[in-house]
Amino acid sequence: MYQTGPTVAEILASHESGSGSPTQTAARVADAVAARGADGTWITPVPRERLLHAAAAIERRPGARTLPLYGVPFGVKDSIDVAGWPTTLACPDFAYTATETAPAVQRLLDAGALFVGKTNLDQFATGLNGTRTPYPIPRSVFGGELICGGSSSGSARAVALSQVPFCVATDTAGSGRVPAALNGILGWKPSRGLISTVGLVPACKSLDCLTLMAATVEDLDRVFEVVAEVDPDDPWSRPRGPRFDGARLRVGLPEVAELEFFGDTAFRDGHLAVRDRLRRGFDCAPVVLEPFLAAGELLYQGPWVAERLVEFETFLAAHPDSILPVIREILTGGFHFTAVDVFRAQQRLQELRATVARVWSQVDVVVVPTLGTTFTVAEVQADPIATNTALGHYTHFGNLLDLTAVSVPMGTAANGRPLAVMVFGPALADDMVLAAAARLLDEPRPSAAQTAFRLVQKERQ
Amino acid sequence: MYQTGPTVAEILASHESGSGSPTQTAARVADAVAARGADGTWITPVPRERLLHAAAAIERRPGARTLPLYGVPFGVKDSIDVAGWPTTLACPDFAYTATETAPAVQRLLDAGALFVGKTNLDQFATGLNGTRTPYPIPRSVFGGELICGGSSSGSARAVALSQVPFCVATDTAGSGRVPAALNGILGWKPSRGLISTVGLVPACKSLDCLTLMAATVEDLDRVFEVVAEVDPDDPWSRPRGPRFDGARLRVGLPEVAELEFFGDTAFRDGHLAVRDRLRRGFDCAPVVLEPFLAAGELLYQGPWVAERLVEFETFLAAHPDSILPVIREILTGGFHFTAVDVFRAQQRLQELRATVARVWSQVDVVVVPTLGTTFTVAEVQADPIATNTALGHYTHFGNLLDLTAVSVPMGTAANGRPLAVMVFGPALADDMVLAAAARLLDEPRPSAAQTAFRLVQKERQ
Repeated sequence: MYQTGPTVAEILASHESGSGSPTQTAARVADAVAARGADGTWITPVPRERLLHAAAAIERRPGARTLPLYGVPFGVKDSIDVAGWPTTLACPDFAYTATETAPAVQRLLDAGALFVGKTNLDQFATGLNGTRTPYPIPRSVFGGELICGGSSSGSARAVALSQVPFCVATDTAGSGRVPAALNGILGWKPSRGLISTVGLVPACKSLDCLTLMAATVEDLDRVFEVVAEVDPDDPWSRPRGPRFDGARLRVGLPEVAELEFFGDTAFRDGHLAVRDRLRRGFDCAPVVLEPFLAAGELLYQGPWVAERLVEFETFLAAHPDSILPVIREILTGGFHFTAVDVFRAQQRLQELRATVARVWSQVDVVVVPTLGTTFTVAEVQADPIATNTALGHYTHFGNLLDLTAVSVPMGTAANGRPLAVMVFGPALADDMVLAAAARLLDEPRPSAAQTAFRLVQKERQ
Repeated sequence: MYQTGPTVAEILASHESGSGSPTQTAARVADAVAARGADGTWITPVPRERLLHAAAAIERRPGARTLPLYGVPFGVKDSIDVAGWPTTLACPDFAYTATETAPAVQRLLDAGALFVGKTNLDQFATGLNGTRTPYPIPRSVFGGELICGGSSSGSARAVALSQVPFCVATDTAGSGRVPAALNGILGWKPSRGLISTVGLVPACKSLDCLTLMAATVEDLDRVFEVVAEVDPDDPWSRPRGPRFDGARLRVGLPEVAELEFFGDTAFRDGHLAVRDRLRRGFDCAPVVLEPFLAAGELLYQGPWVAERLVEFETFLAAHPDSILPVIREILTGGFHFTAVDVFRAQQRLQELRATVARVWSQVDVVVVPTLGTTFTVAEVQADPIATNTALGHYTHFGNLLDLTAVSVPMGTAANGRPLAVMVFGPALADDMVLAAAARLLDEPRPSAAQTAFRLVQKERQ
């Protein structure tokens, strides 16, 4: 765990008790952002005066102290609309000023949260490394010129730096989990459809989902309670699954021979140590990773890249030079796929889905490394495609297989680089993967009954 | 209702009581098939001696009389494998001798049913009119040179002629419902995945489903009890939904202005009379048909035709002249679609699915005409594409929207042509659409409890 500043829970407690206030928090956030300067975290931070003004407005709201996220600051990935602010997608020529706020963000604002700004990303949310931006390239908070990871690079960094206790980002192929892993925080990709994607500029619309980044499972829980809703305007929307109150969690672990570390012995050793801990704390059983990885290969070697063109084809044709060369190359690759390729790949995917579905009768969740290895900015720039593919080895399959997945920080490897594991489970087993993450972090987690009680008490205040 | 010969239930009763026997039934079937000659119903009927031999073998099976389909004859659409018999797809150069029997057919054989042969179809199951075959073109049993409908043309005709009391056919875009409507029998397309599609040569693999044709709902029920199973080898397989025991069925009826009869006033008048009956017997409410029809247009004007090339691309390239010109033209049309077209259409489909999902909170099933009009063979041959599109007006959307649908015969229109309505509902509401069909036919239907009792009694015999 890298983040050391106050959590959502701590900020709330301070604002509720009066030991702190939203305007005090806003001032602290503005100072922290200003202190870092143009480090590639934010594309459009809210200016200090406006932030203080917004915090004061929250304080004046009737019943302000009972708001579920009263004065809690947060960042928004710059592919999600917030009315009055530019949405750039890290492509200045694509940018427009949003006229409506994404409903997920609106729910946070309605709950009293304080919008701090728009965070950096790999252009068009296409990439897992965080270097694909015309703005300053952010680095991992772990230093050593390590990449920040992407595409939700700035969101992860803002949380890891304790500038904000949570961010709303996105994850299509790993964009929420990879940068979380590289910055020592939690990155959770709930099942697709639980958080409305209205107001998000799509990458692959059929796969996109909004994600949450925070430093504790408790914070993820709190924020999720606010943002999750069935949205009739989102065709992929669906209701969340049940709370998990079971004590026994069966954890699937692939054979070590199936794990890929790209020759990174520090990461391999670090992960094997985590597995030893897992075996002591959980009921573990072997699982075969092959069908998951096969689905992941379909994503980036297969035709899904063409889905990005549904959104960007017109802009690409009109403004090819406005797009970073690596992004342009990836996008134009989508034109090489035919309709037959798509149906063939989707049929294959259905076979893999059926195979994977049988895994869940044996285990509740599966644990793998989030990353097999990491890279420096220079390494990624020297070989942008191969390094990016390596970064997505364990994350590419998540949305294609309709999973829920959370990246959980696990300290550092012997080389000082950040270790993380990914806990994933089937669609709507969101609470189960969070329960496993909490146990991995030795974080106490309230039962569903306790949470319900807490919410009722809150409403009565 | 056209079919007048014995039903599954009647044949079973006769075989169980000993008033008839499988060999007697086999002889009657062989006579009936021979009497018709090469009328385009069968591509490969089982020769008389082999049929009698098979019937005798069933009689010798231990506990034969308690078999759920003891000696009941049936036909199989010639796109489904039966070991030892050719699968032609109505394309002689494509034909091969199957080495394995489709699991759905195997379950029927295991239940004591008597395989009578392979039935005619529109080539590659591509068409809804029944004229696209190099074998004799079957006509509707209603005469007047009326098309038989397709693609499961021979299956519908064999049941309507009482040669067999049921057939196993398929339905991707209406192939099971349209020929049933044109021959005065029931054609039921259960929810995708309830009957294994293993051993079926795919048309659009992601949309294909096996269908049942029979003359009564009771027969559909009995056969479905035998064939339905979760098949781990079918990636689209899923368990069936609950039995419907409710008394109240809310029936959705579109506004008349939304219904399309292609200028066919006889069909229009006939259908409006059926609606009057419906209003007296059911709790009816208006529904908007537009999102259903919009999904249907996606199917045949959109990229799904390219999915057929996943199966037939290689054969098309190697043997273009072995394919009927109209089929070749349709298949090659699939090459014009790009991967981007597919993703765009699928995103649009997801929007329509979300819209349609809201219909089911207002009504349980919807009733529309199965066909807005009909055609003669000459009319279809003069304009094969436009007439085919008209035939699929109400059926194209069924599988794209993941519905269950049954075509129910409703007598004849003033012009003597067969009327039918289609009852459809959401995925897994199969028992509900059958319940509605039974009520439309004034057919008593046992409750789930009664059916369970019957099955238990049967097992105890």
